[in-house]
Amino acid sequence: MTDTSARLAALRDELARQRLDGFIVPLTDEHMSEYVGGYAQRLGWLTGFGGSAGSAVVLADRAAIFTDGRYTLQVREQVDGAHWEYVGVPETSIAGWLAGAVREGQRIGYDPWLHTRGFVAETAAALADRGATLVAVDANPIDRVWHDRPAPSPAPVTVHADAYAGESSAAKRAGIADWLASQRADAVVLTALDSIAWALNVRGGDVAHTPVALAYAIVARDGTTDLFVAPDKLDDAVRQHLGNAVRVHDRAAFAAALGGFQGRRVAADPDRAVAAIFAALDQGGATVLALRDPVVLAKARKNPVEIAGHRAASIRDGAALTRFLRWAEDACAAGGETELSAAAKLLAFREETGCLLDSSFDTISATGAHGASPHYHVTPESNAPIRAGELFLIDSGGQYRDGTTDVTRVIPVGAPTDEMRDRFTRVLKGHIAIATAIFPDGTCGAQIDGFARRPLWEAGLDFGHGTGHGVGSFLSVHEGPQRIAAPNYPGGASLEPLRAGMMLSNEPGYYKPGAYGIRIENLLLTVPVAVAGGDPDRAMLGFETLTFAPIERGLIDATLLTPAERDWLDAYHRDVLARIRPALDPATRDWLAAKCAPIAAG
Amino acid sequence: MTDTSARLAALRDELARQRLDGFIVPLTDEHMSEYVGGYAQRLGWLTGFGGSAGSAVVLADRAAIFTDGRYTLQVREQVDGAHWEYVGVPETSIAGWLAGAVREGQRIGYDPWLHTRGFVAETAAALADRGATLVAVDANPIDRVWHDRPAPSPAPVTVHADAYAGESSAAKRAGIADWLASQRADAVVLTALDSIAWALNVRGGDVAHTPVALAYAIVARDGTTDLFVAPDKLDDAVRQHLGNAVRVHDRAAFAAALGGFQGRRVAADPDRAVAAIFAALDQGGATVLALRDPVVLAKARKNPVEIAGHRAASIRDGAALTRFLRWAEDACAAGGETELSAAAKLLAFREETGCLLDSSFDTISATGAHGASPHYHVTPESNAPIRAGELFLIDSGGQYRDGTTDVTRVIPVGAPTDEMRDRFTRVLKGHIAIATAIFPDGTCGAQIDGFARRPLWEAGLDFGHGTGHGVGSFLSVHEGPQRIAAPNYPGGASLEPLRAGMMLSNEPGYYKPGAYGIRIENLLLTVPVAVAGGDPDRAMLGFETLTFAPIERGLIDATLLTPAERDWLDAYHRDVLARIRPALDPATRDWLAAKCAPIAAG
Repeated sequence: MTDTSARLAALRDELARQRLDGFIVPLTDEHMSEYVGGYAQRLGWLTGFGGSAGSAVVLADRAAIFTDGRYTLQVREQVDGAHWEYVGVPETSIAGWLAGAVREGQRIGYDPWLHTRGFVAETAAALADRGATLVAVDANPIDRVWHDRPAPSPAPVTVHADAYAGESSAAKRAGIADWLASQRADAVVLTALDSIAWALNVRGGDVAHTPVALAYAIVARDGTTDLFVAPDKLDDAVRQHLGNAVRVHDRAAFAAALGGFQGRRVAADPDRAVAAIFAALDQGGATVLALRDPVVLAKARKNPVEIAGHRAASIRDGAALTRFLRWAEDACAAGGETELSAAAKLLAFREETGCLLDSSFDTISATGAHGASPHYHVTPESNAPIRAGELFLIDSGGQYRDGTTDVTRVIPVGAPTDEMRDRFTRVLKGHIAIATAIFPDGTCGAQIDGFARRPLWEAGLDFGHGTGHGVGSFLSVHEGPQRIAAPNYPGGASLEPLRAGMMLSNEPGYYKPGAYGIRIENLLLTVPVAVAGGDPDRAMLGFETLTFAPIERGLIDATLLTPAERDWLDAYHRDVLARIRPALDPATRDWLAAKCAPIAAG
Repeated sequence: MTDTSARLAALRDELARQRLDGFIVPLTDEHMSEYVGGYAQRLGWLTGFGGSAGSAVVLADRAAIFTDGRYTLQVREQVDGAHWEYVGVPETSIAGWLAGAVREGQRIGYDPWLHTRGFVAETAAALADRGATLVAVDANPIDRVWHDRPAPSPAPVTVHADAYAGESSAAKRAGIADWLASQRADAVVLTALDSIAWALNVRGGDVAHTPVALAYAIVARDGTTDLFVAPDKLDDAVRQHLGNAVRVHDRAAFAAALGGFQGRRVAADPDRAVAAIFAALDQGGATVLALRDPVVLAKARKNPVEIAGHRAASIRDGAALTRFLRWAEDACAAGGETELSAAAKLLAFREETGCLLDSSFDTISATGAHGASPHYHVTPESNAPIRAGELFLIDSGGQYRDGTTDVTRVIPVGAPTDEMRDRFTRVLKGHIAIATAIFPDGTCGAQIDGFARRPLWEAGLDFGHGTGHGVGSFLSVHEGPQRIAAPNYPGGASLEPLRAGMMLSNEPGYYKPGAYGIRIENLLLTVPVAVAGGDPDRAMLGFETLTFAPIERGLIDATLLTPAERDWLDAYHRDVLARIRPALDPATRDWLAAKCAPIAAG
């Protein structure tokens, strides 16, 4: 646990100088990103928290950190309870907590470039109810006291070729222009970094694990676009790719540009564009249309080129993972391996493909009780030896030019207990229930989430995270808008209708605190399904599994599987073997063939 | 189909007199009721529509009726397409349709006593975007031209004894007072008729099928209550029951009373109180807290007395239904029966219990193709003979002093086809999947809805209504806030956490247009479930089925059932036989015993 008391004291001094009684510190950046560049990791710097969702509030005499159920354990390990109160969201909102903590007349600061206007309105109302005021700061007070704050990344922008993207930027921008016409809008402000990367067919390196560049874009009714990005990120090849229809400006010119839409109708996404953008458009006399970023849905429905690319990346990635699984089976049994050494070995196998550009997220390499924390992040301090009797869970993925992967497998070290096999098999039953689901076009993820949980629920068990998230094409490993989760799960989006071409993870799990964690994760492609004899006018969808790696048979109690479930498992393993066998050395081929043999009936 | 052209013309003349270019006609009354008294059935009078959800908009040269997917067929049968456009909600909202239909400068009227303020705000914004205005009328223009409009019902208020209610009104009002204190509120306005009936332990007869009285109530911080109701509805017994803590006023005095809360904090439910109430509180200087009616959740969680009452009512009702099913099996096969004659016979069996106070809704008695309309309403004009080869669907319920029932069964006339048996068995599998569901406390209905649909989805089929609704205790047969339905299903509420004591229907179905309809409906009680070996701190819930009547074995293809499903069916039938056998004559006992015998394995 980092000692952050000096940082907290320095921030409080700065707040006093700015005549503020408190300040709200979110995790996100100016783009509402999930993963943020080092320059924007203010929450982590201030508190030591390393999770991917959270917020903090600092008052003169109290400070609180807000995290959801995924981080209940992690926040207590990383953030000092002597200085910070732990608050669970969504049970308690920041607005609600502040309403109970502030006194009349107090001024609570926020950075308008780091919050949505919805958050600002809700929080301002809660404070006003107590006679306190929410105040937009001109300069973020953390930046004043964070002396070794990293500079913004200098990573260059690169071209994402049509051969990978499957559609030219001009065609994508023409689609956005059509959408603008349908909304009677003159322009749309794009702030989500992956939306900009998708629309312009470019990639970057400003954010760990997500190949995007820090930029803003405004697409006009004629499809031409103003791109705001550090100019030295663009070489001639990128400028030529962008062409004359994309006007390049310095990123610093963006705020001023928002003032130039007097009398025009401009769309911005209330969930993705920050409050400062709405305020600047308003102030400049624009009519602001609060509409979802039109790229979000277009990007989610992969085209045939992206799907083919993902399949190739999955086979390549699956072969690397299979080599790792074979290695790990022996190495973990032999002893001497640790969470860090195993993660490094997996990275090495992926790098040997010659195509790996980055991990798609920080590998979750978690043995024994660490596995019970679904988002465990191994550090040199936490690094644990992998020991006999444990379950070793590894959740990882690669960024390849043709696709982004995400896969979780569990390796038993020595003989697993009956309880472990029971739990693993229930998780597998849930995984199969999702993989085999057939549902009407437009069904939302919340409607099928229960399929993944029922085998656990029947045993009085559950898991505390969503079942599946969207996945980008050489973009973010977590991509909206679709999701498989309970409708009230933090982060929302599970009400988005599922459509053909959407990719999703399928990752039910089970976590026994202090003991072990289990998760089985493959990626799925949503595909049309023709059901003979079905209602003729009812279009149905199903899933095609797009991850290829064996599921550990030693953890399966086949007597708990139905014949249909055993059939699915055998067919999946036949598919795994057929697809990745050619990429393996002979010894690994034999190992995989044994791992993929039909499972014995109960 | 009623010819409503003269009514439409008269309304248009009245709108011209009021200098309005249009008017919005909802189905509901001043209490946002689902079923409304005759005096308030303006939509039905104007359009001929008889469904339980819908709205209309009348402009000078166009008129449209808005209904959801449940009424797609019915609206075309009942409402004249020569005068009315059919519009589907929620695909098209009234606000959205109006935005496309109005011209600049137009004035569209609405009755502020018949709409929520949310509807008003959304619609006003959509009109403003087109330069048109939404105008609150002082007097509803339909009432000016509806010359034979029924007078409000004179039905008396009656006492609902503590022996049925399980908790005194004083205790219930003390609970509301505690809630007011927790919200720092001085008073709450109750407008939902069943909330008022529940809080005061009274019943009425002003609305068909729902034993409530037209009234408003304002509960104060000390638990005392102002009740606004026609004074001649109250006899001495009721006045004595209400006591000194309930001050009785004429219902006409309610609007003025809302002006008397200067400087006080008053709660009102934005989904249940109409816009006029919020406006009157605002105008009177109250601080209005938009909060859910505190009775809604309290009423939904039945107490032990209500549960015991419901069980007694269910056994009584199940015996009557069983007598009917036996009669119908022979009578329908013999020929000569019709939808109306069969419904009358069922009512007669229920009346023979000596306890029936009302049907809990208009019986859906639907044979053959009529069954494919899930909310079919039989009339003398539509009444069809029940013929060989058809499925006869009957969905009905009774209002008893100790409980409200709701049950659907399907009777095959002659030999059903293989397709009918396949479909019926899939519906049964979905029904069993809900009945046997175990889930964490607080799971919402949307999360389990898919369990009811999966067996149909697998065959490319589905049903176009929710799976389950809440049910009142001698109150409305449709009661919120919980529901089992897709999260985006019209009417919402499926995101409400399920809690022990809540009652729900379990009614999956299948509808083949032009051919037949299937629905299997029982009522469920949500109960705590202890699962041996489950996570110790995870409270689980399940369901106890509270409806007792045989499920037609002639429609079941047992080869499609799993062993666990067959076990459930056999156990259910054993329970049915044990509970209702004592209430039957010997011949019906023998018939029921045969109907409840174990189902043959496939």
